[in-house]
Amino acid sequence: MPAERLLEAAVSLFAQHGFDAVSTGAVATAAGLTQSMVHYHFGTKEKLWKAAVEHLMHARGNMFSLNMEDLRDVDDLSRLKVMLRRFISANAADPDLTRILIHEGMNDSPRLKWLAKRYMVRGYATFNAAIESATKSGVIRRLPARDVTNIIVGACVLTFTLSRLLNEVYGELPTSAEAVSSLSDTLLEVLFKGLEAKSRP
Amino acid sequence: MPAERLLEAAVSLFAQHGFDAVSTGAVATAAGLTQSMVHYHFGTKEKLWKAAVEHLMHARGNMFSLNMEDLRDVDDLSRLKVMLRRFISANAADPDLTRILIHEGMNDSPRLKWLAKRYMVRGYATFNAAIESATKSGVIRRLPARDVTNIIVGACVLTFTLSRLLNEVYGELPTSAEAVSSLSDTLLEVLFKGLEAKSRP
Repeated sequence: MPAERLLEAAVSLFAQHGFDAVSTGAVATAAGLTQSMVHYHFGTKEKLWKAAVEHLMHARGNMFSLNMEDLRDVDDLSRLKVMLRRFISANAADPDLTRILIHEGMNDSPRLKWLAKRYMVRGYATFNAAIESATKSGVIRRLPARDVTNIIVGACVLTFTLSRLLNEVYGELPTSAEAVSSLSDTLLEVLFKGLEAKSRP
Repeated sequence: MPAERLLEAAVSLFAQHGFDAVSTGAVATAAGLTQSMVHYHFGTKEKLWKAAVEHLMHARGNMFSLNMEDLRDVDDLSRLKVMLRRFISANAADPDLTRILIHEGMNDSPRLKWLAKRYMVRGYATFNAAIESATKSGVIRRLPARDVTNIIVGACVLTFTLSRLLNEVYGELPTSAEAVSSLSDTLLEVLFKGLEAKSRP
């Protein structure tokens, strides 16, 4: 499907270079198609960018958010732990969303406002709600939820955004199955031995 | 000093747009100087980029690493805590280093190798050593040091790399003195109640 090939090329190029530095011609070339195909399917570069982000978020939704439904009968603490492991895996598998957010966040772009309103407000609210719910149930200590969310998001995301740098530093990528699983284990240990309410002896 | 004005303009533009998208002419314009001044002081764009990174790391060294000397007589656990508060403040005050690392980390750039070799190998080693030392003294639990470092770096850095996004999401920047202090407090709480070896009752 040409439209899908164009979207995948667009995600990859926008994540690498940012909106301004990518032309519709470059996306067409990367997809092995012509520039007129881009305009036929998507109209403007702005529309192509939005479609590319929607494509990315749809893939991520399939991998991550939508899957939370299956955890309705799981207790608050376990749900938070499953959420974190899924979030780490999603970022390890695909760091392009964060790269696009970072590109758009460098300046006050209208695309950043669109991204925040359409996706990120809800994404942060999901984390904050899970933390607040676990706090209310008394399974984690009372701490500012937004700070905890920022700590979790940073801890789950940046390692993969910086994977090429870490490869230079340590001589191995942090994205192997083994490395991802080790980071997940350590994060849950560090985070929850801190977050869990101490049971009174 | 024209050289310093050029370096500051270069740091800011390279952090926003990445190496490829910035011309020496754009740096000169941003500094209110001519392109020939750039070439007179720095030669090529490559050399200007390296000088800009050195300028940034020097400022950060003054704010952060060099100041560790004063903590020689402090115990391992407290030293790690001071290190984290300083690292958060340094990133809140200036997210440009992370932005440059992320730009260069998108591709296999020769500049990334240079950055790793010249600065980042040592930076990561400093964190790993502080964690290993605290583990050896028995004040924190035994966990993979590199994972702990990645968690700490992510938790201390990403919030400020994404500050404009967070401003869209919450209607306030995470870089105010109050917000930085709240994040530091929460991070130390979350991290150390997890990392500290439980004292046997």
